[in-house]
Amino acid sequence: MSTHGMTTDDLTRPAGTPAPAPDSTLRPTLPGRWYTDPELFAREQARVLEATWCCAVRGDDVAEPGAFRRVQVGRESVLVVRGRDGRLRAFLNVCRHRGALLCTEEAGRTRRTLRCPYHAWTYGLDGALVGAPNLRAMTDADRAAHGLVPVALREWLGYAWVCAAADPPSFEGEVVGAVGERLGDPAAIEGYGAERLALGRRIRYDVRANWKLVVENFMECYHCATIHPELTGVLPEFARGVATQSAVGHGAEFAPGAAGFTVDGGAGFPALPGVDPGRDRRYFAVTVPPTTFLNLVPDHVILHRMTPLAVDRTVVECDWLYAPEVVAADADLSRSVELFHRVNLQDFAACERCQPGMGSRAYAAGGVLVPVEHHLAGFHDWVRNRLGEP
Amino acid sequence: MSTHGMTTDDLTRPAGTPAPAPDSTLRPTLPGRWYTDPELFAREQARVLEATWCCAVRGDDVAEPGAFRRVQVGRESVLVVRGRDGRLRAFLNVCRHRGALLCTEEAGRTRRTLRCPYHAWTYGLDGALVGAPNLRAMTDADRAAHGLVPVALREWLGYAWVCAAADPPSFEGEVVGAVGERLGDPAAIEGYGAERLALGRRIRYDVRANWKLVVENFMECYHCATIHPELTGVLPEFARGVATQSAVGHGAEFAPGAAGFTVDGGAGFPALPGVDPGRDRRYFAVTVPPTTFLNLVPDHVILHRMTPLAVDRTVVECDWLYAPEVVAADADLSRSVELFHRVNLQDFAACERCQPGMGSRAYAAGGVLVPVEHHLAGFHDWVRNRLGEP
Amino acid sequence: MSTHGMTTDDLTRPAGTPAPAPDSTLRPTLPGRWYTDPELFAREQARVLEATWCCAVRGDDVAEPGAFRRVQVGRESVLVVRGRDGRLRAFLNVCRHRGALLCTEEAGRTRRTLRCPYHAWTYGLDGALVGAPNLRAMTDADRAAHGLVPVALREWLGYAWVCAAADPPSFEGEVVGAVGERLGDPAAIEGYGAERLALGRRIRYDVRANWKLVVENFMECYHCATIHPELTGVLPEFARGVATQSAVGHGAEFAPGAAGFTVDGGAGFPALPGVDPGRDRRYFAVTVPPTTFLNLVPDHVILHRMTPLAVDRTVVECDWLYAPEVVAADADLSRSVELFHRVNLQDFAACERCQPGMGSRAYAAGGVLVPVEHHLAGFHDWVRNRLGEP
Repeated sequence: MSTHGMTTDDLTRPAGTPAPAPDSTLRPTLPGRWYTDPELFAREQARVLEATWCCAVRGDDVAEPGAFRRVQVGRESVLVVRGRDGRLRAFLNVCRHRGALLCTEEAGRTRRTLRCPYHAWTYGLDGALVGAPNLRAMTDADRAAHGLVPVALREWLGYAWVCAAADPPSFEGEVVGAVGERLGDPAAIEGYGAERLALGRRIRYDVRANWKLVVENFMECYHCATIHPELTGVLPEFARGVATQSAVGHGAEFAPGAAGFTVDGGAGFPALPGVDPGRDRRYFAVTVPPTTFLNLVPDHVILHRMTPLAVDRTVVECDWLYAPEVVAADADLSRSVELFHRVNLQDFAACERCQPGMGSRAYAAGGVLVPVEHHLAGFHDWVRNRLGEP
Repeated sequence: MSTHGMTTDDLTRPAGTPAPAPDSTLRPTLPGRWYTDPELFAREQARVLEATWCCAVRGDDVAEPGAFRRVQVGRESVLVVRGRDGRLRAFLNVCRHRGALLCTEEAGRTRRTLRCPYHAWTYGLDGALVGAPNLRAMTDADRAAHGLVPVALREWLGYAWVCAAADPPSFEGEVVGAVGERLGDPAAIEGYGAERLALGRRIRYDVRANWKLVVENFMECYHCATIHPELTGVLPEFARGVATQSAVGHGAEFAPGAAGFTVDGGAGFPALPGVDPGRDRRYFAVTVPPTTFLNLVPDHVILHRMTPLAVDRTVVECDWLYAPEVVAADADLSRSVELFHRVNLQDFAACERCQPGMGSRAYAAGGVLVPVEHHLAGFHDWVRNRLGEP
Repeated sequence: MSTHGMTTDDLTRPAGTPAPAPDSTLRPTLPGRWYTDPELFAREQARVLEATWCCAVRGDDVAEPGAFRRVQVGRESVLVVRGRDGRLRAFLNVCRHRGALLCTEEAGRTRRTLRCPYHAWTYGLDGALVGAPNLRAMTDADRAAHGLVPVALREWLGYAWVCAAADPPSFEGEVVGAVGERLGDPAAIEGYGAERLALGRRIRYDVRANWKLVVENFMECYHCATIHPELTGVLPEFARGVATQSAVGHGAEFAPGAAGFTVDGGAGFPALPGVDPGRDRRYFAVTVPPTTFLNLVPDHVILHRMTPLAVDRTVVECDWLYAPEVVAADADLSRSVELFHRVNLQDFAACERCQPGMGSRAYAAGGVLVPVEHHLAGFHDWVRNRLGEP
C-alpha cells in the first residue's frame, strides 16, 4: 500500500475534541473478498460470531418464569429461557434425541419444562433431560449426558449476552472492559442505569450488506457530513468527520441551540438520574464487536444488535430505552426515536451501496482509510486475529 | 458413542406384537452434515437416487399409446411413454442433437413420435431416431447411435419403476424381495392386487427437509403417540412407539372399536378380494428405499413417492388406491383419505422442524436412536454403503 | 466422437446461396457442463466477458455532457459517461475510498463531477479525483493514484464498446475486422450508417439460459424451419436451414412476394441511403462474440447486446434502429419491430428448453452438429481458447 502524504484538515478544534491522528497518511482497508466470499463468512461464523459475546435478549422480554426467546447466533439457534428460580439460561435449541428444534416461535412461554414436539423428550428449564417416553431407569448420568447443550450467558445492561462457543472468552475483558475503556471510565456506563430502563421502541432492519460494513459505518463519522443532516444538526462536530470513537472518553457535544437529542433538536426528556453532569449534553457511541453498538445520550440509551445471516445480509434490531416513567406515561417518543431511525436508514443505504462494489477489480486490494478513519484498522486487526488470517 | 444402560419400557405386549430389541441401549444416528451438505447430496443423487429403483409413474396415468409423463429422478428428467405396442418405456428426456428437453409438460399425449421442438429431430415411441431435417442416407447404425438414451423400467403393483443408472441393480432383489422380506411372505403383497386398483386421490406435498428425515420418520413409530392422535386412535399399539417395520411380518391391529382405517374409525370399504383373512384388520407399512413407501390396509393401498430436489427439499406425492368399483361409484373417500393426509401433514411438519437442527453443533455427531428406533440404523448403513462412506 | 457418414440434403441451390459444407459428418458440441458449471462461468466472466469488447451503450443515450449509464460487464459495474469535452469515457463504478458504487441508477446526468454519496469523494468526468473532505495538500500524483479505474472504450456504429480488462485486445482485429470478414467487405457495414440512425424501439429479455446457448442459436438457422414461421416467410432460404453466417458475404434474399422485412412481408421504409443496391433485398446477420449480434436489412439495423448474469441466466437487450426521419415522423414501426421480436421470443424459448438438458447424463459428452451447424465449432474453439481449456 503506497501512501501519499495527505494530511488531515487543519481543524479548529474546540476544547475536548480529539486531536487528529498523528499519522495522517492513507491506510489500507480489508480486501474486497472479505465482504463477498461465502467461505470466509463461514469461518467468521465459527471463529467470530459464535466465539464471542453477543447481546441477545432484553431481560424484560423474558420476564416471567418459563418465558423464552429464540435468537440466531452464528449458525446456531439459541434459546434464552427464564427459570422458575428467576435465572436466565441459554441452550442450543436442538433436541438431543433426533435434532428437532425445541421451539420454532420467536418467543413464548412454557410452564415447567421444554418438551420436544416430535418424540416428547422433555427438559427442565435448567436444560436437564427429565423424561423420554419408553425409556426407564434413566440415571442422573444419563440425564446429564443428554441434557440440552448449555450456552454461556451473562446479564448486563438489562440484556442477556450469550456466547455460543464451548469455551467462551472473558465477559469482563471482552465486553465490560471494552466499554469502560472506550468511555475512559469503567463506571461511566453505570450512570445510565440501562438495566432499569424500559423499552420505548424497537425497529428491525434487514440490511443487504456484509456485517463488517455495518460495523465500519458505525465506527466512523467521516460520512456524517454527507449523509446525516439531522445528526450533524444536533452534533455539529460530527460534520468535521471525527468519530467520537477514535478518542478515549470523548463525547460529542450538542449544538448550542439543541434542547435535546431529537430529530429537530427540540427538547427530549429529563436526564436519567445517574448521568454525570459532565455528560448531560453529550453523545457517546460505543462499539462492542462483533455485533453490538451502544449510543448513550442524557435521556435515553440506544442499543443495536446485529445478526449476520449471510455474507451479504445482516439483520439489525435497534432498541430505544427510556426511563420507566417516560414509557409508563405513554410519552410521545416520536421525535426522539426519529433521529436515530433516520440515521439508521441513511447508514444502511450506504452499506448496501458498498456491498456490490466489494466484488470489483477496483476493490480487490481494498480501499483506503483517511486519518479520521484510521481507528477502523483496529477492528480489521481484531477480525483478522480471530480468523487466524494474515 | 457412549451408551447409558437405558432399557425399553416393560411393555405388556399382546400376542403378535414384536418383542423389544434385545439390545436396549442408545445408538448413534447419522451425523448432522449428512442432512445439510450440498456436496453429499450431490453424491447421493449420483450413487443413490439415480442408481436405485424408484417408483415413477402409475401405469393408468399413461394408459393410451403415445401417452407420456415426465418425472425427475435424481438430476435427470425422465420420460415414461406408452408405445403403440402397449409397452411402457422410459428415456432420458433430452434430444441427442443439441440437448433440448423433448417434453416440458408434466404429462401429455403424442401420436406416433416424439419430436424435438427445436430442430425437429424425431424419435419413435421406442426411442429410435427416425428423422432429422437436412440429413439423408441415415443408416440403422446412425439411428441407433443417436436414439434416445433408454432408462431401465419395470412394471409392478401398477406402477412403472425406473432406474436412471446405465447398469441397474436387480429389481427382484432390491424391490420385490425387500417387500416380501418385510411382509414375511413373498406372496403377501399380491393379495392386495395393487395393479388392478384405481386411483382415488393424489396429494402432493412440498417438504422443506432432507429426504432421509422423511424416510426415518416413516420407518419409526416412536413419534406416533406425540403427533398422530388419529392414527393411534385406530392403531392403539402405535401409541407404544413400536414400529410395525421393526419386525418381520408384523401388522398393527385395528382398535377393537374401529370399523375401518378412517380418520374417525368409521367403516371403510369392503376388503380387497385377495386380502388374507389374517390381514383383514391389520395395517402394514413397507419402506422400499430410497424413495417409495407402501401402506397396506384391507380396503386400500397408499403409496408415497418421494422426489428429493435439494439437500433440504423433498417433494412427496401420495396416491390412495381403491377397488375400481369404489372409485367408479364415486364413493365418499374423504374420511378414508383424511386419516393418512393428516398423518402426512403431521410427519412433514416434524421433518421440517428437524432440518434446521441438523446444522447445529449440538447435532454435529448426530443424535441417538432409542431401542424402538434401532432398525433405522439399517437404513443408515444402506445409505452409507451406497455412498462408500464409513 | 464417432461420425456416421451422414450427408447434407441435396439442396437445389439458387445462385448466391452458400455451398453445403464439404465435410458432412456429425461433429461434437461442447460438453454439457460448459453450460451448467458455476465455476466455469466464473472463469468465463474473467477470461471472456471481461477480457473482450462488448457493445455497452448507445451514444445517443448519453448525449449531453455529464450524462451517464451504468452497465454490467462480467462481474463489473461499469459507468459510461460523456465528458464536458464531448468525449465518452468508461470507469469501474466503484469509489476508490471505501468501495461504494458511485451510481446505482441505470442512467442519469450529473453536472461537472461524479460525487460518491457515502463520503463525498469527488471525481471529474475524466475520472480524476478532484476532492475529498478533510484531505488537503493533495498532489497530482495522489489524484492520479486514486482516480477512478478507467475502462477501455471505443465508439463504433453509434455505440460505446468497452473492455473491462486492464489490457484489452485490438478493437480493430476483434470487432471491426470480424464484422468486415463476415460481410466479405470491410466497407459493407458503413453503408448502413448505423452511427447516424435513431433508436426506434428497445426491448429487454430475461432469458433463463446460458449465454452460449443464445450465441449458438443466433449463429445457426437449422432451427428456422421449425420455430420461425414469420422469418422463413420473408426469407424462404432459411427454411432449408443454411445460416447466412456460414458463408462469407452471403445475405439471405427476401421472398419474391415480400415488400419489406416485416412480420407480414408488407412494405417497410425506404432503404437507408448508403446501402448498396446489391443488398437492398437482403438480410445479413453478424455475430461479434461474445455478446453482440447485428442484423442488417435495407431499412433498419437490429442490434442485440447480451449480459450474462449467471451460468443459467442472460439478459438480452435488443435495439431497432431506423433513419432519423422515420423516427422523427413517428412512423408506425410495429410490423417492422414485430418480426424480430417474435423471432427473439421463439429463440429464447428454445434456449430455455435446452438449459435443463445440459445437466443430463445424455449430454455429458455434448450433442452433435449437423453440417449446416458446423461453423458453430468455430465459436466453441473461440471460447475454449480464451479459457485455456482443451
